[in-house]
Amino acid sequence: MKTVYFTPGPAELYPSTIKHFQNGFKSHIASLSHRSKVFQEIFQEATSDLKKLLSIPDEYFIFFTGSGTEAIERTIQNCVEKTSFHFVNGSFSNRFYKTAQELNKKPLFYEAVLGEGFSFQEITIPKEAELICFTHNESSTGVMIPFEEIKNITKKYPDKLFALDIVSSVPYGNIDYSLLDVVFFSVQKGFGLPAGMGVMIVSPRAIKKAEAIMQKGISIGSYHNFPTLVDFAKKNLTPETPPVLELYVFSKVIKEMIAVGIGNMHQQTERKAKILYDFLDSSDTLSAFVQDPRFRSQTIIVADIQKVKGDIKKKLAEKGIIVGSGYGVNKETQIRIANFPTHSIVDIKRLIKALNSL
Amino acid sequence: MKTVYFTPGPAELYPSTIKHFQNGFKSHIASLSHRSKVFQEIFQEATSDLKKLLSIPDEYFIFFTGSGTEAIERTIQNCVEKTSFHFVNGSFSNRFYKTAQELNKKPLFYEAVLGEGFSFQEITIPKEAELICFTHNESSTGVMIPFEEIKNITKKYPDKLFALDIVSSVPYGNIDYSLLDVVFFSVQKGFGLPAGMGVMIVSPRAIKKAEAIMQKGISIGSYHNFPTLVDFAKKNLTPETPPVLELYVFSKVIKEMIAVGIGNMHQQTERKAKILYDFLDSSDTLSAFVQDPRFRSQTIIVADIQKVKGDIKKKLAEKGIIVGSGYGVNKETQIRIANFPTHSIVDIKRLIKALNSL
Repeated sequence: MKTVYFTPGPAELYPSTIKHFQNGFKSHIASLSHRSKVFQEIFQEATSDLKKLLSIPDEYFIFFTGSGTEAIERTIQNCVEKTSFHFVNGSFSNRFYKTAQELNKKPLFYEAVLGEGFSFQEITIPKEAELICFTHNESSTGVMIPFEEIKNITKKYPDKLFALDIVSSVPYGNIDYSLLDVVFFSVQKGFGLPAGMGVMIVSPRAIKKAEAIMQKGISIGSYHNFPTLVDFAKKNLTPETPPVLELYVFSKVIKEMIAVGIGNMHQQTERKAKILYDFLDSSDTLSAFVQDPRFRSQTIIVADIQKVKGDIKKKLAEKGIIVGSGYGVNKETQIRIANFPTHSIVDIKRLIKALNSL
Repeated sequence: MKTVYFTPGPAELYPSTIKHFQNGFKSHIASLSHRSKVFQEIFQEATSDLKKLLSIPDEYFIFFTGSGTEAIERTIQNCVEKTSFHFVNGSFSNRFYKTAQELNKKPLFYEAVLGEGFSFQEITIPKEAELICFTHNESSTGVMIPFEEIKNITKKYPDKLFALDIVSSVPYGNIDYSLLDVVFFSVQKGFGLPAGMGVMIVSPRAIKKAEAIMQKGISIGSYHNFPTLVDFAKKNLTPETPPVLELYVFSKVIKEMIAVGIGNMHQQTERKAKILYDFLDSSDTLSAFVQDPRFRSQTIIVADIQKVKGDIKKKLAEKGIIVGSGYGVNKETQIRIANFPTHSIVDIKRLIKALNSL
């Protein structure tokens, strides 16, 4: 019996991930100098193909970090002199806010009830906010902000910078990158790689902001400040020794996703999410935590456990189905189900069957 | 013909590294939640076995970062309020110094001629220096500082903190960790893993210093500041999603190194280094860059190219021998040869034969 991981990340690997690791080992990619031409080709391929897959403007830069969490820190350091503004609706958006505090900024925030969306039209963003921070998909509660809402805000505040955490939504989501300044994710979720690398998509405006902060004598970090990252990225290099093999595998997976087509992946994700929510809406044992269909995540589906005898995770694991626990205080009362490109319709149907038999 | 990488890092993988990756994939380690019990067991095993292998005091903490370069940044952020002091003798020790500048500290330094050691007894370290920073093995020039010299300085300045970069020497080197406060390395050199993880060994004194700096209202970073890392490490966890599979493989390689014995590995390294230096000292085509035997690196051997027709690296590559270029300005005039635990005496003899035929 094949085991399938529906955990929110680290998650089920993309079907070809292990094969690419094996090929990478065979080709000595793991021993390759990160200052070699072959490395530069890998970097070039990964970044240009990522831009192609996600329709990222040419003039944007792609940077690599150790994790999505590092990307949060670098975003604040490089784009905020004093004040950022955060839409907070769970643990991950809250971490974005807290990080700004830890870096001695004066962040402001608007908080939504857990499991609910924001009433965007009622929110006024203070003048002093330099960077507005969104978490596209709040993995802790399964709330996804429709990109149209984010778009409206970027239009309303044309002089501000915008950061978007797409850690657990990418490659899903019709994101218009040209409206945003820093967008970041990590590879162990929708891309189905082992954890160990974050990716940042950064606008020329954000680079200018980082330079301006630095010129004021405020530290924007060392090896991973934006100007340094730009200098290296222009040569298809990284300041530090990056996870070379992981980057190689990432470039291979992106190429396959381009072949599948982002539109097809998008449709598939929504189709699978609909099957899951339809099940939850008709089930007696489980129910969807997020009520408002406009804010229901398509990639991390959070379910309240209504009436299940015994340990639900253990019972599912016996059938080869691994789901995530609820997050934080909801650890025991909820489960979280990832719906990533690696999960096929067949996998989802098998999951539903297992959930039905609880 | 087997290809052997004598590059300074990324380097030849440890003989069992690929096997451990394959086992990890089979056991779904790459899909494992970083908040699970199995992860905690991997963390616990890796950290306690590393302490055992290197004789690190029990009360020290082991932290994981994205790279050795990140470890440099975290060391300065957490241990320096205003002033650090740096022994600079090449590109990597200079980066340590520059990082302190970029983080708005006021670092001081003593610089040695490239390829030479320091006259330690002549150097007086200013009173204001809070942290004294050494690079055990300067990978750019092949100069290794004997630990006895570092030890003398730690005894001379008992009130200061001491940081040691062991990126390209570990697991070689009779380091007395109890005399040091922050020691760090990355896994793609002596441990023979793919790049993508740094390791920090941190004393309780360094943690206290970080807390004191934070209490003064100075930022010590966010998710990877020492107090946060301690909170998670006490639970065998990391603040961010770490490279779980890499950590698993690291723990397996350490276990094998414990079985080999650090003393045996030490002897083997010195025996292989002697073969290499004896060859260089008697060769007409190549010569050792570092003259003083007391400062000759045992792990990164740098050779001046005296008279070789054509591209030396290419000629060696045709024989399945990959060596590193010289660093920076010496890119064309030197080669660098790694001598790590993965390199057997047989590998070294094959290398010498190839060098002899140039």
